[in-house]
Amino acid sequence: MHTWVDGHRASVLNVQNRGLAYGDGLFETIAVRGGRPSLLDGHLARLAHGCERLLLEVDSALLRDEVERYATELGEGVVKLILTRGDSQRGYAFSPASPARRILQSGPLPAYPAGNAEQGIRLFSCQTRLSEQPRLAGLKHLNRLEQVLARAEWHDVEHAEGLMRDMHGRVIEGVYSNLFLVCSGQLSTADLSRCGVAGVMRAALIEQADRLHIPVHIGDLSHDDLAKADEVFVCNSVYGIWPVRGCGELNWSPGPLTRTLQAVARALLDT
Amino acid sequence: MHTWVDGHRASVLNVQNRGLAYGDGLFETIAVRGGRPSLLDGHLARLAHGCERLLLEVDSALLRDEVERYATELGEGVVKLILTRGDSQRGYAFSPASPARRILQSGPLPAYPAGNAEQGIRLFSCQTRLSEQPRLAGLKHLNRLEQVLARAEWHDVEHAEGLMRDMHGRVIEGVYSNLFLVCSGQLSTADLSRCGVAGVMRAALIEQADRLHIPVHIGDLSHDDLAKADEVFVCNSVYGIWPVRGCGELNWSPGPLTRTLQAVARALLDT
Repeated sequence: MHTWVDGHRASVLNVQNRGLAYGDGLFETIAVRGGRPSLLDGHLARLAHGCERLLLEVDSALLRDEVERYATELGEGVVKLILTRGDSQRGYAFSPASPARRILQSGPLPAYPAGNAEQGIRLFSCQTRLSEQPRLAGLKHLNRLEQVLARAEWHDVEHAEGLMRDMHGRVIEGVYSNLFLVCSGQLSTADLSRCGVAGVMRAALIEQADRLHIPVHIGDLSHDDLAKADEVFVCNSVYGIWPVRGCGELNWSPGPLTRTLQAVARALLDT
Repeated sequence: MHTWVDGHRASVLNVQNRGLAYGDGLFETIAVRGGRPSLLDGHLARLAHGCERLLLEVDSALLRDEVERYATELGEGVVKLILTRGDSQRGYAFSPASPARRILQSGPLPAYPAGNAEQGIRLFSCQTRLSEQPRLAGLKHLNRLEQVLARAEWHDVEHAEGLMRDMHGRVIEGVYSNLFLVCSGQLSTADLSRCGVAGVMRAALIEQADRLHIPVHIGDLSHDDLAKADEVFVCNSVYGIWPVRGCGELNWSPGPLTRTLQAVARALLDT
């Protein structure tokens, strides 16, 4: 389906755009099935939070309407929504009054091997570390060179995702997923106040775990925590949950809590 | 003057460009006078180094020729050269074979107040810290949200630049300049192996200082080093050198070494 820029069909953008110049913007990747964008409230809430922190102006009602209309036309696929601060004057300074530019792109739902969700995946252990920047941590902003470098570390199809740590060796997330550990019936996921992307599926699973009375610990995860975990899984808002079978010399089996939450994630994506 | 994309007049770029999606690219800001790009060798050398580290493919002879032709047509102004990894497939992975897209934009030489170079400037002390990422440190890449946030911290015209520190409080650089201290006849500038942009003017000044037998120390700079400095100046490849008069409660006067190097910088920009 054709791209929209500010609600109009367009496939190009002014080269002065600050998204290009500085990565000055945010994005969301939204699964669409039956013309409905999955987890739309979560995506728009994260975007609103990001806009607040980056001082980006956006009309949220207009944005919601635009995403819904785009998804209806698309029917099935993945929508990538990019917000940028618009075109640049010279230099980093910006006028706070200018509204963000809205870009909607689409592609087909990715055809991941069925085994990813069934038998689980292996994580490549990335050397590229996540830098710590509290002012940007959690946001899905357009400064993604660390992910580009991390993803360039492996080329085999054995590894469906990569594991990223921070500069202190703490276990944080996947290159395009969040990570959960299960230990004695408790879920753990990394604190993302210094680095990482606070995924919409991660937030939804934390909420659902609470409803299911599954304790969730959000904090620092060490290599030891990972090694001792009973179950490990990754998640995002396109594929839901994939069990993790291994990472380097570590191995796990998909366990009962992963399977329960996998069904929960599937239901969240389908409604 | 009109923008060129890959050597052709164009003012727009495909919205799939990885420069927009991930800030996946590099840039240079080059002063042009009398149709000649200043410090071109330095700009192209930094770009080549950046391409190597980001695994970006570029034909350097073609790039040099293009910048020179563009500068000739421009006559006088500032050229902004952006290299991006081209258009995106889905996701962070990229094909190493695809050549970088070349974007050339221009604007007038900025009309800074004459006082900036004469009496010197005041630095705003930015709260936004630079995160530490050795794999990206030194490069002038397109992930510049930290600079956008830092530059948004002040709006008055009293401050012509902002001072940026790293997460450990070490003094690193300006938002769009590098910083030098003078202490007992010795120059000091921050080590940029963890964060910061290794400016082309900074490199040229280090080289020139060596020829003039002025000792240069490259290492960690503390707040104390800044407070005790005899002279402080900032530099970049558009304005050359500005003495720094003050930052917060600290004050300095433009000194003899600053004035000597200011003349050196002017000569570098004019030839």
